[in-house]
Amino acid sequence: MDDRVREHAETLVGWSARIEPGDAVVVDVAAGAHRLAVAVAERLGEVGANMTVTYGSDEVTRAYLRAHDDDFETATGELALFEHADAYLRLGGGRNTAATADVDAGTRQAYRGARTELREARMDTDWVSTVHPTRSLAQGAGMSYEAYRDFVYDAVLRDWETLAAKMSRVKELLDSGDEVRLVTQRNDQPSTDVTMSIDGRTAVNSAASVAYDSHNLPSGEVFTAPYATAGQVFFDVPMTIDGRRVRNVRLIFEDGEVVDFDAETGADAIEAVLDTDAGARRLGELGLGMNRRIDRFTDNILFDEKMGDTAHLALGRAYDANLPDGESGNESAVHVDLITDLSEASRIEIDGETVQRNGTFRFEEGFEL
Amino acid sequence: MDDRVREHAETLVGWSARIEPGDAVVVDVAAGAHRLAVAVAERLGEVGANMTVTYGSDEVTRAYLRAHDDDFETATGELALFEHADAYLRLGGGRNTAATADVDAGTRQAYRGARTELREARMDTDWVSTVHPTRSLAQGAGMSYEAYRDFVYDAVLRDWETLAAKMSRVKELLDSGDEVRLVTQRNDQPSTDVTMSIDGRTAVNSAASVAYDSHNLPSGEVFTAPYATAGQVFFDVPMTIDGRRVRNVRLIFEDGEVVDFDAETGADAIEAVLDTDAGARRLGELGLGMNRRIDRFTDNILFDEKMGDTAHLALGRAYDANLPDGESGNESAVHVDLITDLSEASRIEIDGETVQRNGTFRFEEGFEL
Repeated sequence: MDDRVREHAETLVGWSARIEPGDAVVVDVAAGAHRLAVAVAERLGEVGANMTVTYGSDEVTRAYLRAHDDDFETATGELALFEHADAYLRLGGGRNTAATADVDAGTRQAYRGARTELREARMDTDWVSTVHPTRSLAQGAGMSYEAYRDFVYDAVLRDWETLAAKMSRVKELLDSGDEVRLVTQRNDQPSTDVTMSIDGRTAVNSAASVAYDSHNLPSGEVFTAPYATAGQVFFDVPMTIDGRRVRNVRLIFEDGEVVDFDAETGADAIEAVLDTDAGARRLGELGLGMNRRIDRFTDNILFDEKMGDTAHLALGRAYDANLPDGESGNESAVHVDLITDLSEASRIEIDGETVQRNGTFRFEEGFEL
Repeated sequence: MDDRVREHAETLVGWSARIEPGDAVVVDVAAGAHRLAVAVAERLGEVGANMTVTYGSDEVTRAYLRAHDDDFETATGELALFEHADAYLRLGGGRNTAATADVDAGTRQAYRGARTELREARMDTDWVSTVHPTRSLAQGAGMSYEAYRDFVYDAVLRDWETLAAKMSRVKELLDSGDEVRLVTQRNDQPSTDVTMSIDGRTAVNSAASVAYDSHNLPSGEVFTAPYATAGQVFFDVPMTIDGRRVRNVRLIFEDGEVVDFDAETGADAIEAVLDTDAGARRLGELGLGMNRRIDRFTDNILFDEKMGDTAHLALGRAYDANLPDGESGNESAVHVDLITDLSEASRIEIDGETVQRNGTFRFEEGFEL
């Protein structure tokens, strides 16, 4: 076995999920993630955790959803499984990123709705989502399999404590501010100029560990839960949402809600997201990517949103970690990230003060006011 | 998709497990059974069942078991999953039948012990075990992949109602009898001469459906739960037990218990089984194979024990379906079948009367008293 598969498993189980002896761990394995599952099982055995393994196959889900009449019920047994779990480790990495592209949007929405409680129970655990590098993901990234593996392990196997220390400075900036403004102004595309309130919200230093309220491996972003959004945002990073290509999306916000939108490609996918529920028209997240080992877009949100010199906004559900204790933020069955490149002709202001220009933070070398 | 994969799924969901709308179904998918899982998911969607999919990978289990210190705990979340389930569909078909061959017998035993409640909860559902034909199973059978698939689907896709009607005559014979005697006498191998009490026990007409208390697809056997076994049995059909080859096993019974044994190959595997617990030295099952579409041994108990003109005895756990209501039969963490070929120089007596000779029952053409 590639030593990096073992290191990936060790990072996931140890640094990310902080699994301890006796923990009940549910591991969800995508159809192409078998090798990582074996390494994770080995590590869970060493730690003395309790392991239950589920199969997260897009093709199985597609077959089920297409055949079903959309009158889904909550799977109470699966709910009980998650309610007993201390941790949930999602090992992504399928064999076809478009495997569910022909599942009807209404069906997806009905299924998501029936699984709300399950999702909440999973999110109450020390959950972590990661991916095993597969040929399918390499293809999606436009990369060779070998190069893609290097890319994934570069992003995953890093000194997370050092990155966490750096990201803590961005968290401080966000925690002490009341309003964020994002501006991009390039000749070749629509501009972004949007303001969001973050007053009373707490930023997460997302250092790929539940100890940091961070649930992705790799991570490397600082995010918070904005509200009262107003203005226009142009997302120039191509994405795949529910198996459909989306490109050059523009959202117009008033009073915290999307009031208009367009997209060069995939407008129907955006519309389906926005129509999910009331919360899908409001933002759940503003994130600033800081993992500079992620040096290219690979059409995978787990990586793309962490890329250095980018910002992303998510339509839908907010994370509790950003909110005062007991307060609930934006609620929705969806959480869909959209990304904008900040590497040129951009700035981020907090309370009127420029804290990042063209991707470089003010505490970094090369920052120009 | 091979139409037979779909027919297999339809037989499993419809005839075997009798899944109804709203049923909570746990599907366990072996690493090589993906295509069958897709077909089963489609069928479950059509029926409107609730589906949870677990991953039954031998390689994942091996990695976990080898790394663990053997101090296993019951997985309470997984237990809850099974307790909520109406049905459990096990889709076997791995990629290496010897995948767990290097897992220590003591470790297996400890793990089995910690999963007793889970196993019982699963067996309280309408569970069905089947396999998807994989190259690994074809290899284990000494067959080409193409020929093996034909073999599997011939055994699985048959007119179960017609076979059930025929098997009901054997059930009648066993139900009305008090003692069974099995005799084989061939020059080239040790003989079998064993008697078992079946007084008060009810035979199962195992027609591959939970409606018949039958939980295997394919099935095609009539079985009961014997006791007070005395005599010698020689099992001439080669087997693989816990990943180890076993051949030509001889068991000596006194007062219902194995008091001596030997084996040409795999004596250590038999010894490990016998040492599991007190119940592992007693019989849990006497079965008579009646699926003549299974016309060869393929080193897979699911098929081998159903082969026409064979009988099998299982060390360990008895099935409740064979016992009077509320009475518990032999209890054990194991249920290990051993098979003897009855196609020549054999007879089965019930209460002193010959009911089968050389594999032919007395109600069949060609029977000679």
